[in-house]
Amino acid sequence: MTLATARTVRLDLAYDGTCYHGWQVQPNATTVQGCLLEAAGRVTGEAVRVTGASRTDAGVHALGQVASLQTASTLGVPALQAALNALLPRDIRVRSATEASATFDARRSARGKRYVYLVDNDAVAAPLALRYAWHVREPLDAEAMAEALRTLLGRHDFSAFCASAGRDREPTCMLRAVRVLRVRRFLVVLLSADSFLHHMARNIVGSALEVGRGRRDPGWLRTVMESHDRTRAGMTAPAHGLCLLRVMYPRGRRGHQDIQ
Amino acid sequence: MTLATARTVRLDLAYDGTCYHGWQVQPNATTVQGCLLEAAGRVTGEAVRVTGASRTDAGVHALGQVASLQTASTLGVPALQAALNALLPRDIRVRSATEASATFDARRSARGKRYVYLVDNDAVAAPLALRYAWHVREPLDAEAMAEALRTLLGRHDFSAFCASAGRDREPTCMLRAVRVLRVRRFLVVLLSADSFLHHMARNIVGSALEVGRGRRDPGWLRTVMESHDRTRAGMTAPAHGLCLLRVMYPRGRRGHQDIQ
Repeated sequence: MTLATARTVRLDLAYDGTCYHGWQVQPNATTVQGCLLEAAGRVTGEAVRVTGASRTDAGVHALGQVASLQTASTLGVPALQAALNALLPRDIRVRSATEASATFDARRSARGKRYVYLVDNDAVAAPLALRYAWHVREPLDAEAMAEALRTLLGRHDFSAFCASAGRDREPTCMLRAVRVLRVRRFLVVLLSADSFLHHMARNIVGSALEVGRGRRDPGWLRTVMESHDRTRAGMTAPAHGLCLLRVMYPRGRRGHQDIQ
Repeated sequence: MTLATARTVRLDLAYDGTCYHGWQVQPNATTVQGCLLEAAGRVTGEAVRVTGASRTDAGVHALGQVASLQTASTLGVPALQAALNALLPRDIRVRSATEASATFDARRSARGKRYVYLVDNDAVAAPLALRYAWHVREPLDAEAMAEALRTLLGRHDFSAFCASAGRDREPTCMLRAVRVLRVRRFLVVLLSADSFLHHMARNIVGSALEVGRGRRDPGWLRTVMESHDRTRAGMTAPAHGLCLLRVMYPRGRRGHQDIQ
């Protein structure tokens, strides 16, 4: 087995994160990247390199994760996709595989990410949403949450919403869009930023819930952010409500297609 | 423990059927009714009786199952609901518990049921829908399926769509409504009837798929029904795509509320 670098393939992935210890490969734990490395290794006969745009936490789902695969294999992308899907567990799927430029790196080329957080907001939990939504019994004020989240829009130091394990990077992010929708019993929180710190999406949602429950005013979220103090924020919302929806790339470095 | 008959409570239930051997209590198998009997027995201290409107198959889900619980317990319905939900597995929930008339029997009083069948109709399966939708790769013609299903509307002998295990009852049913919707990658099939024979919903969907795939004309479904011959119908669609949406009761025998 030799390390392959001859060709870059963009993989668009969806997965149910319930049974995985997150994206990133780890010894003695089943991870999404680990499954991909194993499947791609068997398909190509090489020690391939697979880079993911987002290192999703244990239990977090993805509809639009993007990975770049470096390989010397000459297998066409349709065959590569079919072979990977045949070898991968059923809860990880390669939605598409496309030839990418040699400079495409799913992680370093990314210019933005969009996450959705789902809250099951009803007195009794919905059994069919158990794996994909955080059950919160108390009625939440979606408008107050939206108002609070809007105060975070723009470029800021988000270290108040960053887990201690993620303090090794520069803590400035550009929060581009927030949305809170009520769809029947569900509250849908959409967050879009150029990048997210470790646990940032879950910490922002957990803090916004304090506002939704009426324990804090909408203005409180901004105060927390400006404090740069993690201990002032709310709880980290559980992983299973979070889903990586989409990764954005600049024109010309997308691997394969127009994504905005 | 004495058999209780003093009072009837209507339970509205939702469950994820993935981990259950169906509704009906069985020795040496985990069933939804079995879980309810055990939980209600612990709550009331009696050998209660629990009757379900529909004996859903193994793997079939429910958003609107109805059960009648006969008990001598004087526990109020809010406390009964809370206690049952505290004892039941998380994938079975009592959505509501209400006092019902002594004549209310969830099964015998029912005048109609509505099921939804979900098909994940895309080249690559959606990992987040694995438990709740049947993945069918080939593009399906929703309009042809709807046309075929409409030929079954009305009161007919549906024995061509009945599993052999269900041949002990009168095979006439009134199919009241059919609908086929395309929602992005999903095909949603709604079936409403006064009653359903064993496997009838799944056999109708499996046969309609033959039309959706273009292997049969829309008129074929009616021919199959009129043959009364199970061997002429299509395959039984897998259980995990099916969900009991609602049970209808006549005015005055609903247990608790207006349902149409």
